[in-house]
Amino acid sequence: MPTVLPPDDLESDPRIKAVFDDIRATRKTDFINNIWRYLAFDADLLERTWEEVKAVMATPSELDPLTKEMLYLAVSIINNCTYCVHSHTAGAKAKGMTKTQHAEVLKIVALASKTNQLSTALQVPVDPEFLLQEK
Amino acid sequence: MPTVLPPDDLESDPRIKAVFDDIRATRKTDFINNIWRYLAFDADLLERTWEEVKAVMATPSELDPLTKEMLYLAVSIINNCTYCVHSHTAGAKAKGMTKTQHAEVLKIVALASKTNQLSTALQVPVDPEFLLQEK
Amino acid sequence: MPTVLPPDDLESDPRIKAVFDDIRATRKTDFINNIWRYLAFDADLLERTWEEVKAVMATPSELDPLTKEMLYLAVSIINNCTYCVHSHTAGAKAKGMTKTQHAEVLKIVALASKTNQLSTALQVPVDPEFLLQEK
Amino acid sequence: MPTVLPPDDLESDPRIKAVFDDIRATRKTDFINNIWRYLAFDADLLERTWEEVKAVMATPSELDPLTKEMLYLAVSIINNCTYCVHSHTAGAKAKGMTKTQHAEVLKIVALASKTNQLSTALQVPVDPEFLLQEK
Amino acid sequence: MPTVLPPDDLESDPRIKAVFDDIRATRKTDFINNIWRYLAFDADLLERTWEEVKAVMATPSELDPLTKEMLYLAVSIINNCTYCVHSHTAGAKAKGMTKTQHAEVLKIVALASKTNQLSTALQVPVDPEFLLQEK
Amino acid sequence: MPTVLPPDDLESDPRIKAVFDDIRATRKTDFINNIWRYLAFDADLLERTWEEVKAVMATPSELDPLTKEMLYLAVSIINNCTYCVHSHTAGAKAKGMTKTQHAEVLKIVALASKTNQLSTALQVPVDPEFLLQEK
Repeated sequence: MPTVLPPDDLESDPRIKAVFDDIRATRKTDFINNIWRYLAFDADLLERTWEEVKAVMATPSELDPLTKEMLYLAVSIINNCTYCVHSHTAGAKAKGMTKTQHAEVLKIVALASKTNQLSTALQVPVDPEFLLQEK
Repeated sequence: MPTVLPPDDLESDPRIKAVFDDIRATRKTDFINNIWRYLAFDADLLERTWEEVKAVMATPSELDPLTKEMLYLAVSIINNCTYCVHSHTAGAKAKGMTKTQHAEVLKIVALASKTNQLSTALQVPVDPEFLLQEK
Repeated sequence: MPTVLPPDDLESDPRIKAVFDDIRATRKTDFINNIWRYLAFDADLLERTWEEVKAVMATPSELDPLTKEMLYLAVSIINNCTYCVHSHTAGAKAKGMTKTQHAEVLKIVALASKTNQLSTALQVPVDPEFLLQEK
Repeated sequence: MPTVLPPDDLESDPRIKAVFDDIRATRKTDFINNIWRYLAFDADLLERTWEEVKAVMATPSELDPLTKEMLYLAVSIINNCTYCVHSHTAGAKAKGMTKTQHAEVLKIVALASKTNQLSTALQVPVDPEFLLQEK
Repeated sequence: MPTVLPPDDLESDPRIKAVFDDIRATRKTDFINNIWRYLAFDADLLERTWEEVKAVMATPSELDPLTKEMLYLAVSIINNCTYCVHSHTAGAKAKGMTKTQHAEVLKIVALASKTNQLSTALQVPVDPEFLLQEK
Repeated sequence: MPTVLPPDDLESDPRIKAVFDDIRATRKTDFINNIWRYLAFDADLLERTWEEVKAVMATPSELDPLTKEMLYLAVSIINNCTYCVHSHTAGAKAKGMTKTQHAEVLKIVALASKTNQLSTALQVPVDPEFLLQEK
């Protein structure tokens, strides 16, 4: 159950309608998933969040769209966001993630979490080889 | 400062030497970074951790080595592991991560953390469209 | 579903009844929310937790009650506690949090999480200006 | 030690100089703290991050500047960001946080973390009273 | 709702059947809990995870089985894994955890989280007495 | 570097002296480790924290002192508290934790973190067998 309720007539607010129209145009679909409906409880929060998602995730860049989705999914797992794990698993599959690649992402997330905790437990000193030379 | 101390003569233990030799052979380098030296305080922990890192990260698979390193880095940032942030930033650069790709990884990590927290704060319900059909 | 079950007749235990009576008197309401019912599986845990909540949250202090609730909510979001996000969103609203203030709390939580991760990813050195002078 | 190195002549890049000038003008100080210097390794990341910090933290709003800094500090503690704990403790003090208020923030952060974990451990069901009525 | 679906006829895959048979034999029960059914979406992930769980948790060692389950539970609470909190609370009870011991685990988890956050907030320097002498 | 500075003459404050005296008497040592010196920036915070640590950790209970320290250490690792990882590794060793037990704690922490993340990634449904029957 959500902690805020979006109004029934969300798109009667022109700021919200403009964002939803841009989501539909950018993604070439009529589907507006729930995060956008709930963020719309504050038009400014909706506008800023979509603007950033569009710039980072929906604009061609050096990383391909599937790699970006898998990175988003990995972060969402560690941050333990149920909604985001579902939406970005679906998103990565929509961008072509195979069952084997899905399993690979999970193996890396699991292994990294394991060695992250071991490094913290041991307080392993950073190798000088990894450090940049200050100028 | 670490919480355990590796002995000076680590490689006099044949189990440890075997792992270190395999690290050197697999990575084609003489450099053994600190995580392995400190994990060596328990030979079983060292063997199992290396076996898994080798299988997941150093064996050809559907994901390319750079993508795997960037995923590992993203997880290490969220888990807040200082050692791992340094080692996997260096690792990703060694596998070809450009400055622009590095910035992209950071933008995705930052954006995902932001929307993860917003989804949690709003307790956004998962869209039925994202759910799998149970058979 | 909970991992412990409170007995039906919770208040037949005088230690539990005393805490519940104090909650009702302090909050001027008959409503005892679930966290207290489930903590009652161990009377000592219930007593100590309520004593601390009462001292920190329900005793006049330099911070006003709404600011305290918003801080509690922000922590609960980052710690990803579903129950606490719901109870402290409701609590902050009961203490007067407006829709705009709610959105502001979420913007700060989201922005802080973003810059927290960027600082960790970059391992930004602390400016000497921020450090206290040891005496 | 950082994972990227800002160039010596940061402000020879007009995009970076524009952001730094705006930070100085907005904050009415010549001091540019390190997070901005290191974010400058990518001009886009610098511009976007400052734009958001300025809008959320340095623009008058319903929450007063001290409350906003204390919320930022609370989140930074839970996210375990060393740099941010230092910079936002200093920031809150600069905005008037007293020693007693500082201790109060810490007591709330500590108490919330405690009850967050207890709620998770007990999987306490959300009270129907806390749930919004779907329309 | 899960993000992957195990096939109906899981055990028609001989690799999966072998793991399930070993789980049944090791635990002396016909009950295969859900984590294993879902991990079976990738036979390699299933095999490796079970192999590690068997070695660490189901093999006699210096720590007794109940202590190991309580440690697993404590970690699962902090990592906020709903499934794991349920399965390891049940597991610890099955290995003899009393109601009082359960409450004790929760008190330690809650107290440690509290002092962990206080130490981070204060950036308490590590006492030289706690540091090992490098050889 | 800490974010608060304890005064030089901490024990000239009778409330602080009383706590420090009780720490020394309870632990049968003159050594007061840093967390107590820094918590002393607020006498109330110091008194309450010590009172809880004494009750939970330094009072005979159903769990033995070493098990309690290992649980505290496991939580501190996951919460990524550098100070606490050092102090509770030292504490567990002082209570008799062997090198093998230390390695076992780390193996459980690492394995649990791994399966916690896998369960979250897969959103594994809780088995009905693990759920308590509501009365």
